[in-house]
Amino acid sequence: MRPISIVHWMTAVADRGRSLLELAPPAAGQRGSLEGLCRDLMARRGEATATAVAREIALAWSQTPDERRTEFFATLAAEFNPDPEAVAAAAAAYAQAPGPKTQIALFRAAEPPRQELLRRINYAPGATAALVDMRAALVDRLAERPELAAVDADFEHLFSSWFNRGFLEIRAISWDTPASILEKLIRYEAVHEIKGWADLRRRLEHDRRCFAFFHPAMPDEPLVFVEVALVNEISRDIHTILTAPVDGEADRRAKTAIFYSISNCQKGLRGISFGSFLIKQVVDELQRAVPTLRHFVTLSPIPGFTRWLRTPSPDEEPWLAELRAALPGEPTPEALATLKKPLTKACARYLLSARGPGRPLDPVARFHLGNGAQLRQLNWLADLSAKGIAQSAGMMVNYAYDLDSIERNHERLFDQGEIAAARPVRALADQKL
Amino acid sequence: MRPISIVHWMTAVADRGRSLLELAPPAAGQRGSLEGLCRDLMARRGEATATAVAREIALAWSQTPDERRTEFFATLAAEFNPDPEAVAAAAAAYAQAPGPKTQIALFRAAEPPRQELLRRINYAPGATAALVDMRAALVDRLAERPELAAVDADFEHLFSSWFNRGFLEIRAISWDTPASILEKLIRYEAVHEIKGWADLRRRLEHDRRCFAFFHPAMPDEPLVFVEVALVNEISRDIHTILTAPVDGEADRRAKTAIFYSISNCQKGLRGISFGSFLIKQVVDELQRAVPTLRHFVTLSPIPGFTRWLRTPSPDEEPWLAELRAALPGEPTPEALATLKKPLTKACARYLLSARGPGRPLDPVARFHLGNGAQLRQLNWLADLSAKGIAQSAGMMVNYAYDLDSIERNHERLFDQGEIAAARPVRALADQKL
Amino acid sequence: MRPISIVHWMTAVADRGRSLLELAPPAAGQRGSLEGLCRDLMARRGEATATAVAREIALAWSQTPDERRTEFFATLAAEFNPDPEAVAAAAAAYAQAPGPKTQIALFRAAEPPRQELLRRINYAPGATAALVDMRAALVDRLAERPELAAVDADFEHLFSSWFNRGFLEIRAISWDTPASILEKLIRYEAVHEIKGWADLRRRLEHDRRCFAFFHPAMPDEPLVFVEVALVNEISRDIHTILTAPVDGEADRRAKTAIFYSISNCQKGLRGISFGSFLIKQVVDELQRAVPTLRHFVTLSPIPGFTRWLRTPSPDEEPWLAELRAALPGEPTPEALATLKKPLTKACARYLLSARGPGRPLDPVARFHLGNGAQLRQLNWLADLSAKGIAQSAGMMVNYAYDLDSIERNHERLFDQGEIAAARPVRALADQKL
Amino acid sequence: MRPISIVHWMTAVADRGRSLLELAPPAAGQRGSLEGLCRDLMARRGEATATAVAREIALAWSQTPDERRTEFFATLAAEFNPDPEAVAAAAAAYAQAPGPKTQIALFRAAEPPRQELLRRINYAPGATAALVDMRAALVDRLAERPELAAVDADFEHLFSSWFNRGFLEIRAISWDTPASILEKLIRYEAVHEIKGWADLRRRLEHDRRCFAFFHPAMPDEPLVFVEVALVNEISRDIHTILTAPVDGEADRRAKTAIFYSISNCQKGLRGISFGSFLIKQVVDELQRAVPTLRHFVTLSPIPGFTRWLRTPSPDEEPWLAELRAALPGEPTPEALATLKKPLTKACARYLLSARGPGRPLDPVARFHLGNGAQLRQLNWLADLSAKGIAQSAGMMVNYAYDLDSIERNHERLFDQGEIAAARPVRALADQKL
Repeated sequence: MRPISIVHWMTAVADRGRSLLELAPPAAGQRGSLEGLCRDLMARRGEATATAVAREIALAWSQTPDERRTEFFATLAAEFNPDPEAVAAAAAAYAQAPGPKTQIALFRAAEPPRQELLRRINYAPGATAALVDMRAALVDRLAERPELAAVDADFEHLFSSWFNRGFLEIRAISWDTPASILEKLIRYEAVHEIKGWADLRRRLEHDRRCFAFFHPAMPDEPLVFVEVALVNEISRDIHTILTAPVDGEADRRAKTAIFYSISNCQKGLRGISFGSFLIKQVVDELQRAVPTLRHFVTLSPIPGFTRWLRTPSPDEEPWLAELRAALPGEPTPEALATLKKPLTKACARYLLSARGPGRPLDPVARFHLGNGAQLRQLNWLADLSAKGIAQSAGMMVNYAYDLDSIERNHERLFDQGEIAAARPVRALADQKL
Repeated sequence: MRPISIVHWMTAVADRGRSLLELAPPAAGQRGSLEGLCRDLMARRGEATATAVAREIALAWSQTPDERRTEFFATLAAEFNPDPEAVAAAAAAYAQAPGPKTQIALFRAAEPPRQELLRRINYAPGATAALVDMRAALVDRLAERPELAAVDADFEHLFSSWFNRGFLEIRAISWDTPASILEKLIRYEAVHEIKGWADLRRRLEHDRRCFAFFHPAMPDEPLVFVEVALVNEISRDIHTILTAPVDGEADRRAKTAIFYSISNCQKGLRGISFGSFLIKQVVDELQRAVPTLRHFVTLSPIPGFTRWLRTPSPDEEPWLAELRAALPGEPTPEALATLKKPLTKACARYLLSARGPGRPLDPVARFHLGNGAQLRQLNWLADLSAKGIAQSAGMMVNYAYDLDSIERNHERLFDQGEIAAARPVRALADQKL
Repeated sequence: MRPISIVHWMTAVADRGRSLLELAPPAAGQRGSLEGLCRDLMARRGEATATAVAREIALAWSQTPDERRTEFFATLAAEFNPDPEAVAAAAAAYAQAPGPKTQIALFRAAEPPRQELLRRINYAPGATAALVDMRAALVDRLAERPELAAVDADFEHLFSSWFNRGFLEIRAISWDTPASILEKLIRYEAVHEIKGWADLRRRLEHDRRCFAFFHPAMPDEPLVFVEVALVNEISRDIHTILTAPVDGEADRRAKTAIFYSISNCQKGLRGISFGSFLIKQVVDELQRAVPTLRHFVTLSPIPGFTRWLRTPSPDEEPWLAELRAALPGEPTPEALATLKKPLTKACARYLLSARGPGRPLDPVARFHLGNGAQLRQLNWLADLSAKGIAQSAGMMVNYAYDLDSIERNHERLFDQGEIAAARPVRALADQKL
Repeated sequence: MRPISIVHWMTAVADRGRSLLELAPPAAGQRGSLEGLCRDLMARRGEATATAVAREIALAWSQTPDERRTEFFATLAAEFNPDPEAVAAAAAAYAQAPGPKTQIALFRAAEPPRQELLRRINYAPGATAALVDMRAALVDRLAERPELAAVDADFEHLFSSWFNRGFLEIRAISWDTPASILEKLIRYEAVHEIKGWADLRRRLEHDRRCFAFFHPAMPDEPLVFVEVALVNEISRDIHTILTAPVDGEADRRAKTAIFYSISNCQKGLRGISFGSFLIKQVVDELQRAVPTLRHFVTLSPIPGFTRWLRTPSPDEEPWLAELRAALPGEPTPEALATLKKPLTKACARYLLSARGPGRPLDPVARFHLGNGAQLRQLNWLADLSAKGIAQSAGMMVNYAYDLDSIERNHERLFDQGEIAAARPVRALADQKL
């Protein structure tokens, strides 16, 4: 009962439909341009032809040069919108007589036809990956082209339905994983660069673990992955993790699992959050596989610290302004050493108090604290790479996932805005200089 | 790289969240009732708690007695609707200044919160199956409770996204298939009852084929399956197919594949069409596996014929009224024999001309002709079962799938309302009595 | 990295070689007869041709009628033997100058060419199964045709090498197992007949387990399987096991695993023992899967009891003769009831003292005690089927597998001839009448 | 019905047995030494203990330093031999009265107990791999220690039974293969070194293929693998193959499959030939997957040519002696260029006429011609690596596998000693200088 590759077959259908296309006149618009194909697809009723057109779109997309893509997105934004008058009428009818008929009519009028277009493109073999790629290109343009926001909202809405967590599959990644997947980890690692196959192999040794989420429609594309080190004490710096000799007994005695890197792989899935779910599931897997584990802790960067520190704020305390003045533009470890006390105090403050719109300002803090983790420990001289020194004065932080308190932490953060932090971190924030 | 069962893990998460639930006060509404749980779920922000509540809902649903379920659906219909005023305001704002912001706001206001509720229920392990079951119960009530139509529309909308054909997997079903799946074929066969394991085994022999669609989130539940006989001539009656001795050479010489049964398994997926896609893919698979095949033809019932015949129509021709009068209430094969000529003429007319709203009136004809098949042949004394005699005076029909013309047939039917039929069938409709 | 079916390919090679065969003259003997094909195969050097001839042999064997097979075995016994003079010379040379050269020469001279013949037949696709079938037919003839013993010894020698336990694969059998395998369990069950699919399904429910050994070269053929019931108390009769309602909580609370049936499937593998290994592995699997289990106990027949009881022995005690006289030819449960005391005493004596050549006389006792199990408990009115009453006066026995003592029990049995038995069983043997 | 890892379980059994071992006195000899463990294993009857001892042996072997291993092999050679007197007696009895009893007794007496020892070691988890490793070490010592030949014969005899081709599994190796397997290809490549992951990846691109044989008991260890290039013309040099740009259309239009490297991976399986079988199966696989292929041709080294050329022979023709004299010790391509005519003539002569004991002298020629391939073409300046120039004056040769003639070629070579060669190669051998 081996499943037959539906992708194989869809390609065949699309091939057949394709020859039909060459004979028949396009149903609408002109073919040849991406825009014309999209109009054509919306006008199709025949299944094979629709699949063929959808496939043309996926192919044409992959061959469209970057500069033309903006134009295509502009068309998507300008056309395929709900008809303002129709939707106003439907809304009025619904307001006047709320009921199934008016409600259904309203939803039909209000749902952008673009969503139907994207669903139809998804008929073609491999089209899910093409659509994710499409949105990745769209996301790059959003800042400059705010008029594309509605297009982006439609992508996000569909993706959050298709990539529903119940449809995801977690896989343990090891040295027995196909090279074609491993190669992608090397490419997608976003936190601590993987420097070739030997480095990768070290990260998959006996005392390391790696897990990733996949979706059935993109079986070769990791969505997000996390790298874990099995150690005894809570790691305070990243160099030790990346270069330690292999501990052959780790699976029998490790007490601590360090989540030292978590990378989202698909820019096109921005806003669809998997990481939180992945970390929690990995905690669970590890607990079963390595029963000696007691602590599940990240070793995380603090990407926004120095930027925050270097930005004056009107009502700040004087010592902060002094610290800012004292901090060299490109500090060396030696220069930092003289500022250890104020820097750790400032960093603890940053993590505990700096807020964006209602949430922690630091993006990594936002992610882990939002997941219900606790701010456990601040580590001095923990990442001496150029990037580490530049963004966080060489500091890193541990967030702890304690399964018994993550729900409570999570709810407190969202309900009362209260950050879960260990006493020593609070003490750092209040230390006397 | 064996995938770890996400279902296993979700159950664990849900278990953990469940104990939290018992300690914590419900976020909204009262727990205990399905309705209360749904309100609670919409108010949750914590991931594990939400998953736990979703699981409670799936469990509670399975334990809710039939009579209480109507009430639950009524609540779903009464609450979780778009706010009429808010949507009217959003539509007005959009009509006045169409743009990304107003459009996104409009879609948010117009999408029934019910859709979000269903998406959240789907967080729980196995919840997709529970939701499909829920809709099956809903579908049963639609005729009597038209006010549930909007609830149904939301289910259908989400299912058509989740069960997107690109996410489906086709599997060949054989005697090597797990008994737990085969057992379901016995249960779900809707056209020609499977009378136990021996009958099933006959249908999976060397000269028979069976294929089914599955969805990754319901891996043990066939969505639709088709049974095929590999024969030489186009079969004219169903008895021969069900009882013929095994042809051990079929895969080396069969010229014709007869699709003699196609069954939708999930009432809860009504309106999400897979059958058309399945048949076409099976044609393709068979062509590759049995290269001698030249014809792909159904042997199909005509479920609506006698009902149509027995319903007088104002402007009908006199011979039809005569035939109606002559047809016994419960005809025997012998009684039918005397009426062969007018019955075949009437049946051909029914298939070629009787229309529902723009489409063939007979549901099976609607399905196959809508797929682009051609009405090939009408078979006299083809199904002498009680059901066969009652619904179609013992006649059956062959629809032919010719890959080179299905697109054209399909488009002609939808564009010009033209039914593809072989000359002999047209001749029957015009025969002199 | 999906394995390509070597069977598929071997068939292709054999097909190609086959056409060569039709052109080329046979290398030796006449083709057409099994014997001729065997002589031909021994004379071949070309690989494809040899594979083709091997395949011819497998095919020809399957078409050879039963009466001709004896003749074929006779040829195998008469030809393909070591050359007496050559082997005598080689043995003399070895005795005179033991060393690598003479030893290798000796082994070559002494190994029956039949073993090489069987190895070559095994080149063909699926030939392992054909050879196992061949030996099954041979085993049936051994009693009447003692001259075939050497042929049988060669089969057994090769099979014990090919079916080395390290090459076997254990599989859990469940309702998710392919029907084509389940069907074979129904056929092969040797202890308590499986009465159709419903009966089988009961034996695979939540509170039952089934495991089987398979060999990679015969992936669809179970070699041996065991059926297990998960219960609380040690079961005293088989009827309860076969008919009890399903215990849906068994995997969370069962204390005892009852091995109530173990069946060897392949007569052709007689003498190659898998059962012992299977039971021990299953104990291990169960311990991991159902941690509440404390006891691993069989519920076993006593197939040789009444035969032994009905056979007078010169120096037996008087009560035994009396019991024999009192026992009706075809006893009813009621008749047995009056003899309970002497029957249980006799049965305990039989199990504890009756010996064949150095080992327990009862074949089932021999198997389990030889595995290191302990004779735990004798059960009165435990199997009231006709067979149960006839062979063991309705009694059954429990053997217990206690992992901490099976080695010791095993070694004591073989070294000192001491049978491990629980005190109550010894007490029964010594009870006063 | 997922198979449960028998290796996992055997390890568990062995662990349990292991603790028993620590309590119980050794059954024979002293434990601690490999020799003592082997004697102990032969004396065991209990299954778990035997498995435990077998595992000890596998472990002890892996920790035995190289110098101690010779001693161990010497013990294997000195003990575990057939008893000369017993075997002489058995042979005499058989010679006097040939029959099943005497024959079985003879075989038992003549089979070295060493074979039983090896079979028992194979009880332990992973022991097959350990035994293969053991023989690899043995093979290294054979030249210096001829007294180990009988030990080696026993290994080879058992391996040829266990690694019977019917038990092997062919797998296509691609970039989707686990990295842990690919890593081994890099290590085992014996013909044209793989220079890291990028080089390997090139060899697995769209226009390349790779296949390997595996055995179920060593699922992660390739036994032999072959690398294939899909090209149009027959390749004349290896550099082009290793460095050509990827041909993305190869699978739709390639006419020729070049087998440019075939490597045996396991020295311990010397004498068990898989390569011939592999090549033929790969030819078959390729034919199905790439229907445009017409030619299946190797590009092979001529490892013995210059050695042969540099060795004077008493009755050789004068031009050969002249060539030898003219050939520089370490020739440059330029120096070779001046000798092209006599070198190609000599090489053709070498391939066509130089014989070892009845067979082609060149080992690669022996392999391919023995498989039934034809000597197709001699290539000048085909391998300019240092090794290529040194061993074959930079020449390489193509052997062609034509499925319609390989059997005939094979049989002619073995029956009449006739080498299949294309006319141009024969012409080279006869060219006038």
